[in-house]
Amino acid sequence: METINDSSLAQPGDLAQLVSPNNKVFILRLASGAQLHTHRGILSHDEVIGKPWGSQVFTHKGSSYFMLQPSLSDVLRETRRNTQILYPKDIGYILVKMGIGPGVHVLEAGTGSGALTTALAWAVGPQGRVTSYEARPQFQNLALKNLERVGLAGRVELKIRDIVEGFDEKNVDALFLDVPNPYDFLAQARQALKSGGYFGTILPTTNQVSRLLAAFYQFDYAFIEVCEIIMRFYKPVPDRLRPTDRMVAHTGYLIFARPMILTRDRPPTEALLIEDGDFQDNGSFTEDLNGNTNHEEVN
Amino acid sequence: METINDSSLAQPGDLAQLVSPNNKVFILRLASGAQLHTHRGILSHDEVIGKPWGSQVFTHKGSSYFMLQPSLSDVLRETRRNTQILYPKDIGYILVKMGIGPGVHVLEAGTGSGALTTALAWAVGPQGRVTSYEARPQFQNLALKNLERVGLAGRVELKIRDIVEGFDEKNVDALFLDVPNPYDFLAQARQALKSGGYFGTILPTTNQVSRLLAAFYQFDYAFIEVCEIIMRFYKPVPDRLRPTDRMVAHTGYLIFARPMILTRDRPPTEALLIEDGDFQDNGSFTEDLNGNTNHEEVN
Amino acid sequence: METINDSSLAQPGDLAQLVSPNNKVFILRLASGAQLHTHRGILSHDEVIGKPWGSQVFTHKGSSYFMLQPSLSDVLRETRRNTQILYPKDIGYILVKMGIGPGVHVLEAGTGSGALTTALAWAVGPQGRVTSYEARPQFQNLALKNLERVGLAGRVELKIRDIVEGFDEKNVDALFLDVPNPYDFLAQARQALKSGGYFGTILPTTNQVSRLLAAFYQFDYAFIEVCEIIMRFYKPVPDRLRPTDRMVAHTGYLIFARPMILTRDRPPTEALLIEDGDFQDNGSFTEDLNGNTNHEEVN
Amino acid sequence: METINDSSLAQPGDLAQLVSPNNKVFILRLASGAQLHTHRGILSHDEVIGKPWGSQVFTHKGSSYFMLQPSLSDVLRETRRNTQILYPKDIGYILVKMGIGPGVHVLEAGTGSGALTTALAWAVGPQGRVTSYEARPQFQNLALKNLERVGLAGRVELKIRDIVEGFDEKNVDALFLDVPNPYDFLAQARQALKSGGYFGTILPTTNQVSRLLAAFYQFDYAFIEVCEIIMRFYKPVPDRLRPTDRMVAHTGYLIFARPMILTRDRPPTEALLIEDGDFQDNGSFTEDLNGNTNHEEVN
Repeated sequence: METINDSSLAQPGDLAQLVSPNNKVFILRLASGAQLHTHRGILSHDEVIGKPWGSQVFTHKGSSYFMLQPSLSDVLRETRRNTQILYPKDIGYILVKMGIGPGVHVLEAGTGSGALTTALAWAVGPQGRVTSYEARPQFQNLALKNLERVGLAGRVELKIRDIVEGFDEKNVDALFLDVPNPYDFLAQARQALKSGGYFGTILPTTNQVSRLLAAFYQFDYAFIEVCEIIMRFYKPVPDRLRPTDRMVAHTGYLIFARPMILTRDRPPTEALLIEDGDFQDNGSFTEDLNGNTNHEEVN
Repeated sequence: METINDSSLAQPGDLAQLVSPNNKVFILRLASGAQLHTHRGILSHDEVIGKPWGSQVFTHKGSSYFMLQPSLSDVLRETRRNTQILYPKDIGYILVKMGIGPGVHVLEAGTGSGALTTALAWAVGPQGRVTSYEARPQFQNLALKNLERVGLAGRVELKIRDIVEGFDEKNVDALFLDVPNPYDFLAQARQALKSGGYFGTILPTTNQVSRLLAAFYQFDYAFIEVCEIIMRFYKPVPDRLRPTDRMVAHTGYLIFARPMILTRDRPPTEALLIEDGDFQDNGSFTEDLNGNTNHEEVN
Repeated sequence: METINDSSLAQPGDLAQLVSPNNKVFILRLASGAQLHTHRGILSHDEVIGKPWGSQVFTHKGSSYFMLQPSLSDVLRETRRNTQILYPKDIGYILVKMGIGPGVHVLEAGTGSGALTTALAWAVGPQGRVTSYEARPQFQNLALKNLERVGLAGRVELKIRDIVEGFDEKNVDALFLDVPNPYDFLAQARQALKSGGYFGTILPTTNQVSRLLAAFYQFDYAFIEVCEIIMRFYKPVPDRLRPTDRMVAHTGYLIFARPMILTRDRPPTEALLIEDGDFQDNGSFTEDLNGNTNHEEVN
Repeated sequence: METINDSSLAQPGDLAQLVSPNNKVFILRLASGAQLHTHRGILSHDEVIGKPWGSQVFTHKGSSYFMLQPSLSDVLRETRRNTQILYPKDIGYILVKMGIGPGVHVLEAGTGSGALTTALAWAVGPQGRVTSYEARPQFQNLALKNLERVGLAGRVELKIRDIVEGFDEKNVDALFLDVPNPYDFLAQARQALKSGGYFGTILPTTNQVSRLLAAFYQFDYAFIEVCEIIMRFYKPVPDRLRPTDRMVAHTGYLIFARPMILTRDRPPTEALLIEDGDFQDNGSFTEDLNGNTNHEEVN
């Protein structure tokens, strides 16, 4: 995760994922001389080190494991947690929607088990920065452990604070509130966010969503988007292709908005209620970006 | 996009997004003295420059626009295109699933209008690298323009080549094929990918998915995942919360797999057919990463 | 619809559906000597009468139409309406869930354009009965016309009444409220429904659903089910099978409940909140229905 | 189910559903003097008989059950089965789409456990008729038991036959094939169906759907519709309204078509490929059904 290892061979210090044929998964950091004890036999780290990623390795009983470099999605799946954590389907959209990429400074509260923190730290890269607030010290400890495991703790500042007291930071690019009552912190969020920056949250119930939407208007947030992302997996059998029998029906409603500066009186709610939802297939981009020619407006 | 502007004020050279109250969108690069001619009047760039992001600005007729910094999602929405392009919902998951983050080297074919190329270049950051192949020169030109507009062309190498001839690169972290017949290029993809690396593609029809799944087995790809991501937007009205009336029903099936090295004979297909789908809430992570203690396997 | 015509040939008085190759649809009742004037030429009813259903018939200009007997779904699609009407996906589930079949007496309010009334009248058959209340006379007139067109008016009693005054009927099997504020009429519904009978409604917003759920507890309704039915169509092309590009995202939340008689004190809300949702694959049915043997409970 | 009992009181011979507070369900036929032995005590049928439906009844240990009349949906849920059975969401749409209501004659193959047979027999009423074919005698026996339990066996004719030999019936209104290879029986289905009648089937995999679609063209079926119905349940808690965590992701693809009589040469496949999918909100119905005035075509 943290360091891109250009080598195609596993090396001491690398994060490795071992997967059995029946899809049992270990994620561990390789160390010469160490051993992994499994129900299917002992696997020496030295059996893994030096082999090409994607190989099969074997326990002393001859049981096989595939050895892989874990992706962010793999790591999140194995995050030790005390709380409900975000799913890759939601995290991926959050990153793209909120512009959380290399070099960005992003705020988060609460830290929880640190799964989203991990994803944010991964996405902002070595030039970016994540500041994460948590009111409960025991969660911060868990999150720190999880971040250290994947080598991303260095990009993250963890703070213990009830965010009702506000954030220390100003002018951040994006802020994600993973708390049950985000509507109580919109003023604090505004203070920390760059105006026009990205506010995001995830909420499990429709009642919370309604309450947050009402609060947005009091604090001049606009470009509100409410959505849910539903993921359906298929059984990967070529001649019997079909969805899996069951699926996750709900993780949460994703809500995004941007704090604005209003300079003239306007009918307050409707004007700000720009439904920023559907991805229009409008196929246009202003042609000459610096020119003075007439432009057609894009719908 | 390309440079994180820490200032909260719009400056010449910044990429700006202007949005009218009825959600008409312009994306343009600010230049002192330039003008934007709209149906609602002329907007001087100098009216925008120096104002805080998130402000309202006004045309000579008094019509207002919100001024914002565009996110990746905003830019993709406005990409000039000749082809079907990927949606943020799909792109976000692709990035997280395939581990495409800061510093990664990712291959893509074909380039098309460059929408995914833009997203990849954004995600890998200044230390990363994107190499994108396209057989049709006119698409490459369009993609180059689109990349230059958002300042990301420097991270991308565009090549003109029919990929049936193979890729020049070796040992890349991830490869995404945005072509209608990915099953014809699995050998070439294998040659370019790090073993255990990430292969991804998107296909509109079930017939193509079936054909690709069958081809995976001939080339020792495993950890196959087939999924679709469905996005449903809600009307953001606090006391009348409800989904929008209509939605996008289908963009494509996402398929991911990893090329493996098989070192022992095994019943070929079933053994490799590890359904890498559902995100299990298993809550475990091997405790002492370098220790020698017994571990419970994680399902 | 109303009379099952055993003949495979179209006859005067039959309800017929004519469909052009580009899917333009007429529904009409056949009459000797009558003519249908279309943009593609005049079609004599006598060209249709006597031909087998499923044939092609031709206008005086040689344009073809397929002739078919319309199903309930076809008729609903063509219902003249002033109001949002229910979709076949929702109607089908309502009928099965609420046990609305041959011989049943079902109440409805409001009548609206009569689309659901038509479906109910069709489903209860000649031995069943539908009583439908509407406060606005102009809607009743429209509904009556729509029912007469398909020959089902004889099974339906239409009443003009604001249902806040209550229903005349008692002991009905099922009651469907197609009104925006069903929570205001739960006492009236109780009076009309057989205890243990089926109450159903459809609501567009989550706020209405929450309000209805709260009201259920005040009036001893239980076996509450809230669901939504989502329908996705596929393009029927054998070698390019895929979902259509867009779909209906939302028609409404369906809510069902049954009024109960509580004979002993019990913690009121939780006890009645039996989530009657998921269709369990439990595979059991009490073996000897009248016997005295031990039974395993079915989950 | 079979006889609508106008009484609001449970009587001997009635089909009753007993539900515990933790949602354990029994369906049984009431008989004076009989007893139901449950884990929560013995319940005398005489405790139930004479009480109003919707009441609570009690075992000798004081445990309570709600007593209800089961709907079709309730009965299907408890059908004893050896096979995958259809869900209410699918059955409801099948009935409405295929016009299976009072008085209709419908064919089915295979009978399987008789769940769909039960639904069809319920829907066609005492004047309708269901003929169901099954190749395996042991399934027929199970289906017969299931039909007798709910008092619907009298409307159903069960036949043992491999349908490759064809159906005895001609000119039926609707035919549903619940077999894995419906594409092998389209000629037989055509012989049994009224032309323009309704053919329906459900298939779990996309490969089967593709194969069926190709076969439709060889046998002049048109008005093809392929869809899937997805049902999402909500937790019925007023102030914490949200979808359930997990859901059924897939039961099967529903496919409908109608056999046509082609009287003129025409480009064969495309012309018949009328996508009969989306329920258009076209709001029109030809005004004067028997008149000679000009009509606008309905899109």
